[in-house]
Amino acid sequence: LNASPVAGAGRRITLLTDFGTADGYVAALRGVIASLAPGASVDDAGHDLEPGDVSAAAWALARYWQLYPVGTVHVVVVDPGVGSERRPLAMEALGRFVVAPDNGCATLVLAEVVAARVHAIDHPAYLRHPVSRTFHGRDVFAPAAAHLACGAPLESFGPSVSDAVRLPMPVPRTAAGTVHGAVVHVDRFGNLVTNLPGDLSAVLRVLEVEGRGVGPVRETYTSVPTGHVVALIGSAGLIEISVRDGDAAASLGVGRGAVVRGRLRG
Amino acid sequence: LNASPVAGAGRRITLLTDFGTADGYVAALRGVIASLAPGASVDDAGHDLEPGDVSAAAWALARYWQLYPVGTVHVVVVDPGVGSERRPLAMEALGRFVVAPDNGCATLVLAEVVAARVHAIDHPAYLRHPVSRTFHGRDVFAPAAAHLACGAPLESFGPSVSDAVRLPMPVPRTAAGTVHGAVVHVDRFGNLVTNLPGDLSAVLRVLEVEGRGVGPVRETYTSVPTGHVVALIGSAGLIEISVRDGDAAASLGVGRGAVVRGRLRG
Amino acid sequence: LNASPVAGAGRRITLLTDFGTADGYVAALRGVIASLAPGASVDDAGHDLEPGDVSAAAWALARYWQLYPVGTVHVVVVDPGVGSERRPLAMEALGRFVVAPDNGCATLVLAEVVAARVHAIDHPAYLRHPVSRTFHGRDVFAPAAAHLACGAPLESFGPSVSDAVRLPMPVPRTAAGTVHGAVVHVDRFGNLVTNLPGDLSAVLRVLEVEGRGVGPVRETYTSVPTGHVVALIGSAGLIEISVRDGDAAASLGVGRGAVVRGRLRG
Repeated sequence: LNASPVAGAGRRITLLTDFGTADGYVAALRGVIASLAPGASVDDAGHDLEPGDVSAAAWALARYWQLYPVGTVHVVVVDPGVGSERRPLAMEALGRFVVAPDNGCATLVLAEVVAARVHAIDHPAYLRHPVSRTFHGRDVFAPAAAHLACGAPLESFGPSVSDAVRLPMPVPRTAAGTVHGAVVHVDRFGNLVTNLPGDLSAVLRVLEVEGRGVGPVRETYTSVPTGHVVALIGSAGLIEISVRDGDAAASLGVGRGAVVRGRLRG
Repeated sequence: LNASPVAGAGRRITLLTDFGTADGYVAALRGVIASLAPGASVDDAGHDLEPGDVSAAAWALARYWQLYPVGTVHVVVVDPGVGSERRPLAMEALGRFVVAPDNGCATLVLAEVVAARVHAIDHPAYLRHPVSRTFHGRDVFAPAAAHLACGAPLESFGPSVSDAVRLPMPVPRTAAGTVHGAVVHVDRFGNLVTNLPGDLSAVLRVLEVEGRGVGPVRETYTSVPTGHVVALIGSAGLIEISVRDGDAAASLGVGRGAVVRGRLRG
Repeated sequence: LNASPVAGAGRRITLLTDFGTADGYVAALRGVIASLAPGASVDDAGHDLEPGDVSAAAWALARYWQLYPVGTVHVVVVDPGVGSERRPLAMEALGRFVVAPDNGCATLVLAEVVAARVHAIDHPAYLRHPVSRTFHGRDVFAPAAAHLACGAPLESFGPSVSDAVRLPMPVPRTAAGTVHGAVVHVDRFGNLVTNLPGDLSAVLRVLEVEGRGVGPVRETYTSVPTGHVVALIGSAGLIEISVRDGDAAASLGVGRGAVVRGRLRG
């Protein structure tokens, strides 16, 4: 598939999975890639995601997929439906590739890039045989990523797909001077990422989460004393609720799905 | 040891340890390798194994060692006997190398490859001096791996070893239409890996674990409703007992060593 | 910044952070580096440090920074003051570079190397714009590291700094035949690293931690039976208190800051 002396040379593949780091499953993916695309370099994007937490995978992937150079292949294996009829997908968006099960892992990529090209993976030449029923990371997604890194054309993997699964993404709504949103992600620091865009902070007077006052959106964590709740524009461009030097999810006892309300100026 | 412009170029080393990722111990191994074999690429195969859990290391290693290309050096540092008289070993099997303490980490490699060549590591040229009493990962196994990656011949590391330590591996036995096995590994999803070969599923009527019925071996997780127990042929080719979208070890309250029994057809 | 065909080729960057591996934050740093210095190789030195634990970061960094070859760029992002006035720093010591917030992460590097050169990072050409208030790992430290790896001179990053923050490091003191020290670090095995230098073991009769006897300094873990407390010279050259095949911090109920006392001979 590649005329270069070392297959995949100069190409990069990232791995995001809910495998633990202790079981050797991640290394199985890496071994398959090392055999098929020895020139590619492989980054651990993240592991130990909550088992089966497709939404967390979608949020994590959104943090980095565009930061990598054109040509990078991002693999996501959070795959509770492995072995069932759910399709494996390979897609291209802004020159990067994503290889993932068709379960919503790529929801935010597809939301950001309307012109993404999505194909099912079913060409036998791109699979590892025999394909197991329980480990498509090793037998489907890793080999597909390696072949993409070696230059195999996206179209050759299988038929075009126009109905890839997308997770429902709650959209904020405004009524009577109040904006209603939700916590959409909680990170390991306990930061509560909301679906309220950072731009909104200019017209927001105060914010509350599950009825508890958070105050206005501030500039930095150090705008409040240690242990206090603070709202900020987070690194994803969304309003986040944090506790300075603490864990907001634990302190406030709230998590993904919590109701967020903001009072608008004027 | 190597005439190439960059020592170790094109070679791959993997690291499996019970070090946490937070202490800097893994990076100490990587730093030693980067200094001795700057051209080699180093993969984290797995870390954060249960401290001293040699059996878990043996199972994890079995998941990936053959998937890597010929020439790969697999380092395993789960080493409760560090500093004692236990030998450090370097071995070759099917063209891959394993560097590990002589405590059973390589049990499954040695079970799979009768013709493995095993040597003790004691040549001073391959050690980092002074060799500490508590950190052979840094002072013995990492430098040995780097020298192997740079082409040092296995025989030069030390004397041949014919009595490498192997963990006892329980073997299933059959009596009166029943096969008796055991859970030999539990992964981070709580899947119970048994020592019953997948081939057995053709003649197995039903399975039970610690007296609790599991039913027949199914095709995929989705063969049962969410939360139900299901037996499958796992990715290692062994029968595994899982809970769909759940954790079988936690749900059933069983772990490594649990008794598994299967009723045979006819 | 670099005339080589692939920017950063042959250079190495390490990452030590308190990011979890599941959030995609580490991959954001890697993506930024891959875009700016595609030829550099990036090692995970450690992640999942206790959030904001600058002291743990300083100890972890000390385990490996000198083991890497000259030219390596070590990135540390444990940064509870992100977005405040604390400076981002780039420094050079013994030919290696460290990029970190000015909060004490580099305390042990600066203690080991008097002649370290330290500069603030404020040249806009080395930052990712817009610079967020909450994620300098992505917007300040990763791009600075990439530019260093590509050969940008340290002096060009910003003004020289002579007052970098250093953590207070407790120093052992001796009085009336007794040496008084402290536990300065606890690793994932529960080993208690003290500030007593290993050399002291020659003149130490017995050791105690928080009033509990530990005995003399021994050669190896296996000098005592399983489950017993043992003092050793650890891999950092300091006296450590361990439990053979166990967790000293948990068994003894002590942690960082615990009082250690040794009776001297004669």
